[in-house]
Amino acid sequence: MEQRTRRGRTPRAEILDAAGELFTTNGYANTSTRAVADAVGIRQASLYHHFAAKDDILDALLSETIATPLELAGQLRDRPEPAHIRLYALAWFDVRQLCAAHWNLGALYLLPELRTDRFAAFRLRRDELRGHYETFAGAVIADAAEAGIPGAEVLPFRLVETVISMRSDEGSAPAYAERTIPDATLRMLGWQGDLDEIRGAASELLERLASPLPLG
Amino acid sequence: MEQRTRRGRTPRAEILDAAGELFTTNGYANTSTRAVADAVGIRQASLYHHFAAKDDILDALLSETIATPLELAGQLRDRPEPAHIRLYALAWFDVRQLCAAHWNLGALYLLPELRTDRFAAFRLRRDELRGHYETFAGAVIADAAEAGIPGAEVLPFRLVETVISMRSDEGSAPAYAERTIPDATLRMLGWQGDLDEIRGAASELLERLASPLPLG
Repeated sequence: MEQRTRRGRTPRAEILDAAGELFTTNGYANTSTRAVADAVGIRQASLYHHFAAKDDILDALLSETIATPLELAGQLRDRPEPAHIRLYALAWFDVRQLCAAHWNLGALYLLPELRTDRFAAFRLRRDELRGHYETFAGAVIADAAEAGIPGAEVLPFRLVETVISMRSDEGSAPAYAERTIPDATLRMLGWQGDLDEIRGAASELLERLASPLPLG
Repeated sequence: MEQRTRRGRTPRAEILDAAGELFTTNGYANTSTRAVADAVGIRQASLYHHFAAKDDILDALLSETIATPLELAGQLRDRPEPAHIRLYALAWFDVRQLCAAHWNLGALYLLPELRTDRFAAFRLRRDELRGHYETFAGAVIADAAEAGIPGAEVLPFRLVETVISMRSDEGSAPAYAERTIPDATLRMLGWQGDLDEIRGAASELLERLASPLPLG
């Protein structure tokens, strides 16, 4: 009989939660699958029933960090709302989920392991999300009255991910990040309209899409 | 007789360069001091003559990444130029040095090891740099015609450091980053003036300060 010590809906969720904690606090290379199994309170053989190797656990954790924003971006791509509302909605949602995640998993994006073939599929999916951001941002720049800053369409995706550094440096991202970052995203693209109005429109849009992670 | 295999001005510089490569490509935890010594072509005992432990090498590498921007920020603090010129100059210089560094050492900022006491002094110095950014950015917001975005003074430091993710994802930061990021920094703070003019003024200011890393 195993005595599971970790709370979670399923054994798989417990393993991912324990691994998320150990990878972000002790480091990926420093964490063995044995340590993960111990933290869950299961035998290593039971862990292997769910994940064949440590990199499969990492891949599952990383995939979780982009699954919902990627799904949302796909929905937003086909919406009739102006690009600045869709970009605002995506950035808001994404900042919020990066802040709300139990562990700061984005800190693992810079692991050298992620540049290996093993994580090519994950990198492709993250590039896909980045592509959505850049498409929306390019449309915002094209709509803006003012001449845009060349290359600025790459910045919204990057600015959103800065909540990862904030969490790492400060223990948690500041509460105002989920407002400040989407607001700043539009301003740096040269969009000069009323931000309260956009925020209201983005909020309505997100509710209409019945997004899997409510903005609360 | 040792047969050193690495080029560098001094044995210490060779050790740092080899460690920078190994830490960023294989990972910090995966790299032993023995591997660093081997990469330099020296005995481990010779390495210990320069660095007593692996974390001393990491500390030296990390300190290099903030030494010159911190020195520049201290000089800029006491200058009479308007805050937007000083912030632009700092962001430009810092993006450039993060892009030009031989190894993408900023990728190591998210290591869990950095949250230990061993790196408290480094964290304090990085916080000091961050404080300079926030002071300059706060002054830009105060000067701007338009009402600022609450909390936006924290973003310029973060936006500058996104070149670390760009380098990690793309192999190198895009050439336009050193223009796009300082430009976007001012725009997201609500500063609406002419960016070419500011860039000219920031360039002159940096030359006047005879900064240790010329903008080329």
